[in-house]
Amino acid sequence: MVEHEQAKRGRPGYDREQILQVAVALFIEQGYDATSVAQLAERLGLTKSALYHHFSSKEELLSLALEQALGGLEAVLQTRDATTGTASDRLGVVLHGAVRVLAARLPAVTLLLRVRGNSDTERAALARRRAFDRTVTALVRAAQDEGSVRADIDASVATRLVFGMVNSVVEWYRPTGPEGADQLADDVLAVALDGLRTR
Amino acid sequence: MVEHEQAKRGRPGYDREQILQVAVALFIEQGYDATSVAQLAERLGLTKSALYHHFSSKEELLSLALEQALGGLEAVLQTRDATTGTASDRLGVVLHGAVRVLAARLPAVTLLLRVRGNSDTERAALARRRAFDRTVTALVRAAQDEGSVRADIDASVATRLVFGMVNSVVEWYRPTGPEGADQLADDVLAVALDGLRTR
Repeated sequence: MVEHEQAKRGRPGYDREQILQVAVALFIEQGYDATSVAQLAERLGLTKSALYHHFSSKEELLSLALEQALGGLEAVLQTRDATTGTASDRLGVVLHGAVRVLAARLPAVTLLLRVRGNSDTERAALARRRAFDRTVTALVRAAQDEGSVRADIDASVATRLVFGMVNSVVEWYRPTGPEGADQLADDVLAVALDGLRTR
Repeated sequence: MVEHEQAKRGRPGYDREQILQVAVALFIEQGYDATSVAQLAERLGLTKSALYHHFSSKEELLSLALEQALGGLEAVLQTRDATTGTASDRLGVVLHGAVRVLAARLPAVTLLLRVRGNSDTERAALARRRAFDRTVTALVRAAQDEGSVRADIDASVATRLVFGMVNSVVEWYRPTGPEGADQLADDVLAVALDGLRTR
């Protein structure tokens, strides 16, 4: 299908999404800062000018990848189930949704988690991550206020610990492995909300 | 005291442990592979030959730092409380101890978590990390067998999730912050074993 569309457009090779995928994989492999446009062109088997036909800069590629990750996470916060019901239920919806975004957009989220603020693009992404974290922290605090989440742990520490667990999944999860994304999200939710210990 | 000892030895400047600390900080800041001995000497205000008086190679510095992290984690597994009692209690002891090692040896553990296997030293460290993980996974499985840990999550997934949470602490924990190491270890244990949700 992709090949057919490319044939129709009369432009052999890669479309923007495919170039982005290869770029993100290369950024993960050797670091964004350490990757040159020349190396990316070589990996793709394209000339630099052919690459610049699709993208204006390396930073545009980074920006698009970070948008995939952040846009996915932010969309979870907008869903009906994340905005109605008890704070405890909404927290569960957000955690489950975040794991599914992570599993579905693994390379983009992996890149997001490595961003350190070395450019305007990276700083903007960090600001959006912090805004996401603040929303989740407020949700944890609301759940503490309604009595459904333990109040003996600071809400921001609790949020960091639980998202530390969520984010750590990028280190080992592979979409082709035995653990499906829904099962993984269920497992994360079970440990985060109910813990390992039997009741 | 340190200065006094140095004065007695007649060698002004750094001792081995201080050089190691500066090296680990620099490796974390700009990456181990990207850091040259010349850069490290410059950061220390030493000549390269003065640095080689203390250490035979950059890899020796990495190896010593990884030993601090791995030695600390492995020592937790050897304690009496981690080797006697129910599997559930031992698991709690290991988790608590791992968080305290992480907090006490934050730079070394941070470096350990970034190791990707690019040299014999790194591969040996990864092998020791895997052995540690296997021991903890066996402990989770034993706790499942005794009925104290939920059996509906695969033991190795459960171990990865919980250690994902433990390891994520390096991203934000600062020993000088409001959260003490013992409090942090208690919080991690509470979330990992009992979850956020009130019972």
